[in-house]
Amino acid sequence: MSILVVGSVAFDSIKTPFGEVDEVLGGSACYFSTSASFFTDVSLVAVVGEDFPEEHVDFLQSRNIDLAGLQRSSGKTFRWKGRYEYDLNEAHTLETHLNVFESFQPELPENYRDAEYVFLANIDPELQLEVLQQVKNPQLVACDTMNFWIEGKKEALIKTLARVDILAINEAEVRQLADEPNLVKAARIVRDFGPKTLVVKRGEYGVLMFGEGSIFSAPAYPLEEVFDPTGAGDTFAGGFIGYLAATRNFDEHNLRKAIVFGTVMASFTVEKFSLDRLKEIDYAEIEARFRRIKLLTDFADID
Amino acid sequence: MSILVVGSVAFDSIKTPFGEVDEVLGGSACYFSTSASFFTDVSLVAVVGEDFPEEHVDFLQSRNIDLAGLQRSSGKTFRWKGRYEYDLNEAHTLETHLNVFESFQPELPENYRDAEYVFLANIDPELQLEVLQQVKNPQLVACDTMNFWIEGKKEALIKTLARVDILAINEAEVRQLADEPNLVKAARIVRDFGPKTLVVKRGEYGVLMFGEGSIFSAPAYPLEEVFDPTGAGDTFAGGFIGYLAATRNFDEHNLRKAIVFGTVMASFTVEKFSLDRLKEIDYAEIEARFRRIKLLTDFADID
Repeated sequence: MSILVVGSVAFDSIKTPFGEVDEVLGGSACYFSTSASFFTDVSLVAVVGEDFPEEHVDFLQSRNIDLAGLQRSSGKTFRWKGRYEYDLNEAHTLETHLNVFESFQPELPENYRDAEYVFLANIDPELQLEVLQQVKNPQLVACDTMNFWIEGKKEALIKTLARVDILAINEAEVRQLADEPNLVKAARIVRDFGPKTLVVKRGEYGVLMFGEGSIFSAPAYPLEEVFDPTGAGDTFAGGFIGYLAATRNFDEHNLRKAIVFGTVMASFTVEKFSLDRLKEIDYAEIEARFRRIKLLTDFADID
Repeated sequence: MSILVVGSVAFDSIKTPFGEVDEVLGGSACYFSTSASFFTDVSLVAVVGEDFPEEHVDFLQSRNIDLAGLQRSSGKTFRWKGRYEYDLNEAHTLETHLNVFESFQPELPENYRDAEYVFLANIDPELQLEVLQQVKNPQLVACDTMNFWIEGKKEALIKTLARVDILAINEAEVRQLADEPNLVKAARIVRDFGPKTLVVKRGEYGVLMFGEGSIFSAPAYPLEEVFDPTGAGDTFAGGFIGYLAATRNFDEHNLRKAIVFGTVMASFTVEKFSLDRLKEIDYAEIEARFRRIKLLTDFADID
């Protein structure tokens, strides 16, 4: 029940109204795998440069993450610099240096090819497809994407989506991908591209999950201190897919619980910079917050 | 268990991406009272001009709304002209003609002064307070307000809020009133002004209700056709307060059901222009949609 994740490992420099950090550990594959590691085993495929310190390798290994697929290339690790204003829903990118990520060719170690669960983080949809071609018989394939690929590589993306079970993307990207402003209609169009399950991420407004004849709405966990939203989406995906892989059950009932576990994990990530908050928590805290989301949404049916 | 509502009766001219109407029935008191009338009796206080047609009076009376407090002044009825783009969360006001509403002095007929439930729609907070001074012994007072009063009459507003049990306002207005960007913190500040219950309206993202030591999150009902959001907030309040008045129970359990009934009513209003959709529905449809919101949000707790 190991999950294979392909994505980025990065150094992030971030400024929010509440603080500032320089070159901290980030990237979709880091957030996803750390989050998923609370539920199941994870194998990571990504690339870093010669400047990637042992300390970060040690941390990921301490979370039991298999790093056989972590390539080390000559050059520098991917760097992102961003800023958030009080509206923490919107990141303003100041600098992006792809560095070794620019020529990243995901290659799966032999033992990764039996992965039952695959998460294709937000990378070039052509690379996402190449990864899928290397996996023998996945039980569940989930993926993320972004406006950049919807604009620039829509055809390749749609080819990838045909082989994907679960797509988790932002609300604006659903509308953009479907070319339809109404979200319910847009969800139907996107599901017709392939993914039976569409997870619409809405930041502080939570998540909508569209399945066959059903919609599930989950709120975000209301926090007094949202420190830095970087990585929230990938942390969400890690909890979501992590719980599904751990329970090996993809029915609607379990998908909903998985969405709430994803919501819980994301709520921790945004409380501190980088993976700092995820480094502190244990499974009891995850369950406690799950129960608080249950209390947050519960109401009695009509008698 | 009659509700007293004080607010506006207006002619709205609206353009959305889906159509256009000219001088249709609108205004906070109309939306609120029509919505609440599905649950209980309503007494309305508002002003119209000489141009207000008998047809609208007949409709409101057909909903059993007491119009003894509907003043008819010489002059024209309040007119509002607005436009929405594809982002239906934001109304662009094109024209506002207050007309007879400019010199509106709410005066309660004698039999209104025993009202147990009061809803002060979005009018000048000084008038809201004058209304409260005419009501003998209300069991529950709810109110709405807007950025215009928060900016221009904050002192008067805070004086009114000290006598209010439930405040229902938009998310941005909560932040503005509290002068605090974090919603959870802002809610605490606003509740300290008086209202034990704060209902934060978030448009297509639903509602958050803050009470003593509890938060409740309700989604909006996902619709394939959102035609015109005008009146959604007042329709929500009508269902919410209407259900509370009908059940005479203000505990957390019942407040949550009331929030969902408000959500249901608002979801009907936005499906057509003006009160057109509310004119078609019956209580069975309201209950059916309540049950669908239950299905939309339900998930199993951790075993």
